[in-house]
Amino acid sequence: MSAHTTAARRAHGKPDAARAKPAALIALDWGTTSLRAYLFDAAGEVLDTRMSTAGIMNLPVPAEEGGFDAAFDEACGVWLAQSSALPVLAAGMVGSAQGWVSAPYVETPASEDALVAGIVRVRTASGVEVAVVPGVLEPGALPNVMRGEETQIFGALGERGAQFDARADAAMQAPMQPALIGLPGTHAKWVVVEGARIERFYTFMTGEVYAALTAHTILGRTMKRPAAPDTAAFLRGVTVAREHGCAGVLATAFSTRTLGLTDQLAADEQPDYLSGLLIGHELAGLDAVLARRDVELAACAPRLIGADALCERYRLALAQFGCSGAQIVHRATERGLWRVAVRAGLVAPTDQTSQTNQTA
Amino acid sequence: MSAHTTAARRAHGKPDAARAKPAALIALDWGTTSLRAYLFDAAGEVLDTRMSTAGIMNLPVPAEEGGFDAAFDEACGVWLAQSSALPVLAAGMVGSAQGWVSAPYVETPASEDALVAGIVRVRTASGVEVAVVPGVLEPGALPNVMRGEETQIFGALGERGAQFDARADAAMQAPMQPALIGLPGTHAKWVVVEGARIERFYTFMTGEVYAALTAHTILGRTMKRPAAPDTAAFLRGVTVAREHGCAGVLATAFSTRTLGLTDQLAADEQPDYLSGLLIGHELAGLDAVLARRDVELAACAPRLIGADALCERYRLALAQFGCSGAQIVHRATERGLWRVAVRAGLVAPTDQTSQTNQTA
Repeated sequence: MSAHTTAARRAHGKPDAARAKPAALIALDWGTTSLRAYLFDAAGEVLDTRMSTAGIMNLPVPAEEGGFDAAFDEACGVWLAQSSALPVLAAGMVGSAQGWVSAPYVETPASEDALVAGIVRVRTASGVEVAVVPGVLEPGALPNVMRGEETQIFGALGERGAQFDARADAAMQAPMQPALIGLPGTHAKWVVVEGARIERFYTFMTGEVYAALTAHTILGRTMKRPAAPDTAAFLRGVTVAREHGCAGVLATAFSTRTLGLTDQLAADEQPDYLSGLLIGHELAGLDAVLARRDVELAACAPRLIGADALCERYRLALAQFGCSGAQIVHRATERGLWRVAVRAGLVAPTDQTSQTNQTA
Repeated sequence: MSAHTTAARRAHGKPDAARAKPAALIALDWGTTSLRAYLFDAAGEVLDTRMSTAGIMNLPVPAEEGGFDAAFDEACGVWLAQSSALPVLAAGMVGSAQGWVSAPYVETPASEDALVAGIVRVRTASGVEVAVVPGVLEPGALPNVMRGEETQIFGALGERGAQFDARADAAMQAPMQPALIGLPGTHAKWVVVEGARIERFYTFMTGEVYAALTAHTILGRTMKRPAAPDTAAFLRGVTVAREHGCAGVLATAFSTRTLGLTDQLAADEQPDYLSGLLIGHELAGLDAVLARRDVELAACAPRLIGADALCERYRLALAQFGCSGAQIVHRATERGLWRVAVRAGLVAPTDQTSQTNQTA
């Protein structure tokens, strides 16, 4: 397995203006299968971004042979060569037991201050200190964990960089009005935020189960990838899960095959139908757990963090559940990393921060 | 892929007595990944059994090169060499669109007579006629299909071979008292039988999803196979699905990992815990769909058809749902094949039938 770093690119804003600004922070979103590195100026603006496939399970050389150092150097060496004293922050699976250094989970309810207090530091072979953000654990009969999402969530809270402004996001902050944040993906998370703290959350293995079902069960055998995503088939799956889902997804999933066998679902409709089924079951499950706390999914205005196309799918699916106010949050990762770095004192933001960082 | 036929063995009864009896019927349970062949005498007793891995997706040579003939000859050639005029019946995926000959589905409600009327015949290269039993289709928004199970179900109905005796199994036959039959496995089926007809049924992809989750998702990475099945871990999974399952299996499955991460579930407890979770969700789903028809799972005395160890697991899981009267039915496949063959006039049973065939 070898890692591949894409060519550096300017991420946002005006390249010429940005080039003139000095770098102030390196921040990493380091997950299982990818590493994204951001170079910030002192106003919290992203000057440069580098992406690599060197996730913690996909290092260029094994961890015990310096794999983390190698991946870090490959991603950030160019930046550090120019200014070696840059502070470095990292969030994600890099802080797990299989990561570079173990940053033990902070328990819910988890504030930004608690996250900062849980930061653990690791020194690279070349002497750079990397501050690693802990994940969040919700204890209980069915514990839940996150690593990386906590940083994105704080990035989505409010629109200003360093300062948390309650007025800027009243709905998310009013103590009686919990905010709901969805992070679709391999392990989709739904997070309830109350009073700027991660109060509780749920993990749905929707993306990974979809991949396993399509690649490794009979359902995949009759499927054909459509030329373009089939929204009608997707919504049909959502509706089946919502209206006929009471037997659960272990039962409804089989309809992907039987509707095909009975000529009611074409081969190239089956992938999106199954995707809709699974996301529909996820939202039905979310609806049920929220209802137990007297929260109505239909009355929520969830914020969605993730790939645009996937978030758009969730918006459509949520609308089927009567939840029409979902909004997609952009750049939550960069914003969260910047916010935590400021809170941790790794970087002192200039006045410009709230100006530049709030333009999504 | 090559098929392997196990050495012939006497299946039941007294070998010496059986050897003396002349063969009267060959019957095949021919599925996707296996082929089981039974040699019956005229009293419906199994004289010999041969098993092979030559399922329809695992033929010794490709189907278009005579794979079905080759598998059939390998399994039954010895028997036909001794008496070439034996009638042959086959049930299972051999009658699917990917099988030897397509035997179109019979729709629910499906009686034994309807199955017999739907039999399709195929002639082997050596001139033997094989009667292939159709599967059953339940049309609707979520269609369901079975192939092979219908034959086992009729084998489980009543305890007598050729004749269906309503008095012998009143609970299963009384029109107001539907019988529930469970067939655990890769695609577990739960079947409601009313008035000796397959009225409706549900398919749960429990076994296949379990295999995909353990082999192809993050859940498998921390698992260790226990030395012996861990019933306590299994029941813990069932209980979690029953008591904390409202978010659905996409959510609860992740607890296999998080309980491990938090040192609450050992690596070698995780496989059975996940198995319990999935079966628990299956039964919760079954409970919900039965309740919509005012049938209470806890009040049912389901019959279970399948591998003994798996059926025993289901008995334990059902008891957690208050359903303590489940019984395991043995030899349902042989009995069903014999019954259908008699009903189809392929074999004329001697008087002895009801005696020998009812000793389970």
